[in-house]
Amino acid sequence: MTTPSRVGADVGAREVGLPATVRADGLPERVTIWEVGARDGLQNESTVVPVEVKLEFLSRLADAGLGVLEATSFVHPKWVPQLADAEELLAGLTKVDGVSYPVLVPNERGLDRALAAGVRHIAIFGSATETFAKRNLNRTLDEQFAMFEPVVARARAEGLDVRAYVSMCFGDPWEGPVAADQVAAVGKRLVDMGASQLSLGDTIGVATPGQVESVIAATAAAGVPVADIAVHFHDTYGQALSNTLAALRLGVTTVDSSAGGLGGCPYAESATGNLATEDLVWMLDGLGVHTGVDLDRLADTSAWMAERLGRPAPSRVVRALRG
Amino acid sequence: MTTPSRVGADVGAREVGLPATVRADGLPERVTIWEVGARDGLQNESTVVPVEVKLEFLSRLADAGLGVLEATSFVHPKWVPQLADAEELLAGLTKVDGVSYPVLVPNERGLDRALAAGVRHIAIFGSATETFAKRNLNRTLDEQFAMFEPVVARARAEGLDVRAYVSMCFGDPWEGPVAADQVAAVGKRLVDMGASQLSLGDTIGVATPGQVESVIAATAAAGVPVADIAVHFHDTYGQALSNTLAALRLGVTTVDSSAGGLGGCPYAESATGNLATEDLVWMLDGLGVHTGVDLDRLADTSAWMAERLGRPAPSRVVRALRG
Repeated sequence: MTTPSRVGADVGAREVGLPATVRADGLPERVTIWEVGARDGLQNESTVVPVEVKLEFLSRLADAGLGVLEATSFVHPKWVPQLADAEELLAGLTKVDGVSYPVLVPNERGLDRALAAGVRHIAIFGSATETFAKRNLNRTLDEQFAMFEPVVARARAEGLDVRAYVSMCFGDPWEGPVAADQVAAVGKRLVDMGASQLSLGDTIGVATPGQVESVIAATAAAGVPVADIAVHFHDTYGQALSNTLAALRLGVTTVDSSAGGLGGCPYAESATGNLATEDLVWMLDGLGVHTGVDLDRLADTSAWMAERLGRPAPSRVVRALRG
Repeated sequence: MTTPSRVGADVGAREVGLPATVRADGLPERVTIWEVGARDGLQNESTVVPVEVKLEFLSRLADAGLGVLEATSFVHPKWVPQLADAEELLAGLTKVDGVSYPVLVPNERGLDRALAAGVRHIAIFGSATETFAKRNLNRTLDEQFAMFEPVVARARAEGLDVRAYVSMCFGDPWEGPVAADQVAAVGKRLVDMGASQLSLGDTIGVATPGQVESVIAATAAAGVPVADIAVHFHDTYGQALSNTLAALRLGVTTVDSSAGGLGGCPYAESATGNLATEDLVWMLDGLGVHTGVDLDRLADTSAWMAERLGRPAPSRVVRALRG
């Protein structure tokens, strides 16, 4: 006689703690998380968040241990009304020692505004493909470089750090797959111009780990040190974290992510967008890779922001810990 | 003068195709997907699906190219009413040549029912930890083995294949982290008993890639060939796919997943459960690892099943392609 098994039946729950730490070979000791929630996240939310809430969000993110907080954008408010309060936000910001607050700057007019606001670290946003350059910037790739040249030159002359985003590095919704050499050539040109860091973006979330390896290898072979390459993955197809793991194994030590998974790619509205910072930190904590981030405090912050936005956080970790 | 940049603004959408294929070193040529949607998926859904729908689901999964379809369970209907129709389902099943239809069998009574229904491939469901064995089976680990011994012996004597699930291999909601040697010892004992395959399960979804490597290495060191080890990851904390990548790099070639991400772990109800087959196939297609699965057809099937269940599919790929 056997007692019936309860396989799969609910037998009671208990709080799950943080992940166990077991290191894996071939990974960096530390990773810098470039937190994009306040800019890339909020600019893709349909709700326009009041500046006070943004300021509290940034303050909470710094308290959670994040060291790089992309704060806002000087893109024209016509295009991104969610960030129309950039000046007000920067004027109200209480900067935490040791935390960097880069700001996205699309062009010379944006740089004027950034300099007037006392910004010390900017990011420009380029395309790896002709079609996206045309669609997003209304320019050819050559015209894109011509637009960025004076921006980067002036920023560097003023002593600013410049990061260059390269979007559509792994696939473009109009062109399809993007050649690794194409990404490498665009990235190298931006570095030659004066960018100190590239962020290789999978804007539509289609990349897989072999492609990630090939694009990073091609960019490094073109002469960009791996230490100057960051990765920016979207979780549209659920691939962001395995792609991140592949990049870390190649020596990448800067990873972009968005607290709570805020925001997303407007070309795949039905799906999630940016890699969630919590999901990234869970993996890195488990791997014993130092980030300086307190996962519990960060999850609290994202749960708080999700309430402000009136919807659950896309992050799986946030939903599991705070859902 | 510069035209305002439209960075991040919606500039029109286009259908995204399947991922580009770029192989990565150190991965297997092919992977067998053990599709658990009809059993592990549906037993964790609150909706009880009619047997006709289950039969159409299994038929569609076979059409999509899946070669192993865990069909149902002979667990007592008191515990899993969702699968109370196991006999009816197997009687109505039109088996496709080359497709295997394993069935979960918890104990001797379940084996009687499976044999009477003509089942040729069974799976048993054990625990890696004392506490979960007690909670789920009301047994100590030794009593768990004593319960399985006659089941496996009779099944093997009847010429059946036997897979052994080992649950809570990476964390247990009551015990916390689980030692790799503990998992290896439990797994080895089940293999010695006659199981031809182990499925190492992260039932609560907490594992990270270093831990995956350590548990697989310990199990292999205990004498279980890596070829006989399958992995079963849950996406509760978003880690399933990076854990899968780590397992593949160690030579694992059988991966469990659930079409559309059906089902989930009852201990983390607010979050998602099984790794979605589509998210797995996206990565494997991108890596050029052969699975035999037609991703488009599979996504159609999961979208169809999501309609039957009256809620979106948890799979990110399904939402992105069909949302």
